[in-house]
Amino acid sequence: MIYLDNSATTIPDPSVIESYQHVIKNIVGNPSSLHTLGGQAERLLETARKQVATQLGVNTEEIIFTSGGTEGNNVAIKGIALAHQNRGKHIITSTIEHPSVLEACASLEKLGFEVTYIPVHKNGVVDLDVLEQAVREDTILITIMHVNNELGSIQPIREIGEIAKQYPKLYFHVDDVQGLGKVPLALHQQHVDMATFSGHKIHGLKGTGIFYIRKGTTLFPLLHGGEQEYGLRSGTEHLAGAVAIAKALRLIKENERNKHAHLQHLNAYLREGLKQTDSVIINSPQHSAPHIVNISIPNVKPETVIHALGEHDIYVSTTSACSSKSRDDSAVLTASGFSKARSQTALRISLTYTNTEAELKEFLHVLNDVIEQLLN
Amino acid sequence: MIYLDNSATTIPDPSVIESYQHVIKNIVGNPSSLHTLGGQAERLLETARKQVATQLGVNTEEIIFTSGGTEGNNVAIKGIALAHQNRGKHIITSTIEHPSVLEACASLEKLGFEVTYIPVHKNGVVDLDVLEQAVREDTILITIMHVNNELGSIQPIREIGEIAKQYPKLYFHVDDVQGLGKVPLALHQQHVDMATFSGHKIHGLKGTGIFYIRKGTTLFPLLHGGEQEYGLRSGTEHLAGAVAIAKALRLIKENERNKHAHLQHLNAYLREGLKQTDSVIINSPQHSAPHIVNISIPNVKPETVIHALGEHDIYVSTTSACSSKSRDDSAVLTASGFSKARSQTALRISLTYTNTEAELKEFLHVLNDVIEQLLN
Repeated sequence: MIYLDNSATTIPDPSVIESYQHVIKNIVGNPSSLHTLGGQAERLLETARKQVATQLGVNTEEIIFTSGGTEGNNVAIKGIALAHQNRGKHIITSTIEHPSVLEACASLEKLGFEVTYIPVHKNGVVDLDVLEQAVREDTILITIMHVNNELGSIQPIREIGEIAKQYPKLYFHVDDVQGLGKVPLALHQQHVDMATFSGHKIHGLKGTGIFYIRKGTTLFPLLHGGEQEYGLRSGTEHLAGAVAIAKALRLIKENERNKHAHLQHLNAYLREGLKQTDSVIINSPQHSAPHIVNISIPNVKPETVIHALGEHDIYVSTTSACSSKSRDDSAVLTASGFSKARSQTALRISLTYTNTEAELKEFLHVLNDVIEQLLN
Repeated sequence: MIYLDNSATTIPDPSVIESYQHVIKNIVGNPSSLHTLGGQAERLLETARKQVATQLGVNTEEIIFTSGGTEGNNVAIKGIALAHQNRGKHIITSTIEHPSVLEACASLEKLGFEVTYIPVHKNGVVDLDVLEQAVREDTILITIMHVNNELGSIQPIREIGEIAKQYPKLYFHVDDVQGLGKVPLALHQQHVDMATFSGHKIHGLKGTGIFYIRKGTTLFPLLHGGEQEYGLRSGTEHLAGAVAIAKALRLIKENERNKHAHLQHLNAYLREGLKQTDSVIINSPQHSAPHIVNISIPNVKPETVIHALGEHDIYVSTTSACSSKSRDDSAVLTASGFSKARSQTALRISLTYTNTEAELKEFLHVLNDVIEQLLN
């Protein structure tokens, strides 16, 4: 199998699976229970939290374990909106956010909030001037992703953070699901108040996530109850999930430090090969995250290519998995000003550290054959 | 180890762990992806959903996989409130609900909703007359638990369902986290519109849950995004979690059918033994769920008993794990009219099908010794 759909989901690392198994088999007890089994579970949870905080360069009490990226994005957006609506009901986001951000914003519009969608340049990067001018007295939240999930374009988080920090009552949230472990992000230094991370995008497990929330930031929790996770995310803690994502995070951060050149090499090799493939147009901007290369093959249905590649045990995707069944074009490419011919024929090749040049060579070879057959 | 804290969390069944492992090791792919790996994951998810629906006697499309009981309770309460607030802003619940229900309701009070808390009789059962009279033109939701998590008292779900069905625009939600697999509940027949279930209370895994929502019931999802789970719970599906909870549900339902007499026998044996133990008062009503026996030992700090039992590798709890760190009395017992002397000294012994008479004999023996030492 040649798996090149790592932005949809990754294959769990065996050692992450092992950590998970160890916990569910050996650690009985609800971390909130008073007896020693509860205490043992609680200590392990806090160790995992500390490890995550260290890896992300933030404080332990700024880390909340969640069920995944969609939960993180929703709690940031709805949580700030519902808690701070007395101060204002205006939110700023971009036109190329993940559906979990766009739909969370749209849901708030139904509750009387106003959302400004900042356009992006053709390279898939938000227009900073427009963003700066969009900030109003009643703006309570800016939510912008770090790395776009379809194009791989990198958003100017530092610059947006600088804008946001001029308004002490304005919160800044970053969806870093696609950037984590691939494109570094200094949360404190770049004035990020909240950030969303997902386990299954970094060779961890589905159903696990991390939410960073800067000390002093208050929100309306989505899950009220037993006051777990500093009262921000009630519910019996998914201890094994926390341990597993802490492990996955450590491993991907090691790769980010030590194998970044490998990923960049793969990206360059892939782009070079694609340039030599007839009919292929590369959509991802030159300066973008190393693991995502978005292409179009005009006049060829992307589903057909996916199917044909699948017969060779090679896996890529069209748009994001979270949008793939709902529309026939890529919302991100359309928002970035690409023609219909291109946004309807987009394919995303998404890499990870374990992919090899040999795999990409084979992929390029098969892709060539597939296109030739489909166009002739 | 003698584990008698099964209402806080249960020990996962080895075959549930096995199912989970099988999926995370073998099923790559995001169920929303278009390629064959995605299709394979999606089929497995739908098989799990169908199994759950069959076990619960409802339709497949009425089953939503969640991250646990707290999520289910929150989505029912906030989801109905935010979606139907134009029709009314009044909610009815009881004084002895789980914190995830009480706090979700309290959070809505901050948003302008009005909540009526129905009192309970001394046996921990809601006052039906008061409840019936509390229903108003603007009541949009009744949320009442099935089995109380501290006392084991069983609420009159059938009767409440009959009341609710007289108001076609009034939704009825049941927190069945403690009842599942112990006290049968016929969701359709008893006019339940929504019900919450948790995986880790039925020998499944933490971080997994089931939410039943009757066809035609609309709510404001807590998690918006890629429209997974019929658009009611977006986010990449936790496939292995869904398979694991489907397995756990099948096993607990088998036990409910085949080993109910065993659980009732354990309950009777335990009560008989406790009656013969000096200083122990049983708080659970005679007619209650078979797996929960709540007691008080006046003048003895329950934390001290828990600690002393723990030294013999025996585990019980004070109140619910979700309240155990926040107050020194049991809110449930206080609401049920017990004296402070009793509600501050309550202990919960909670059983499961794998417990044995020999374990309870040993527990009673040690408890006797512990009380003697502590009172003398």
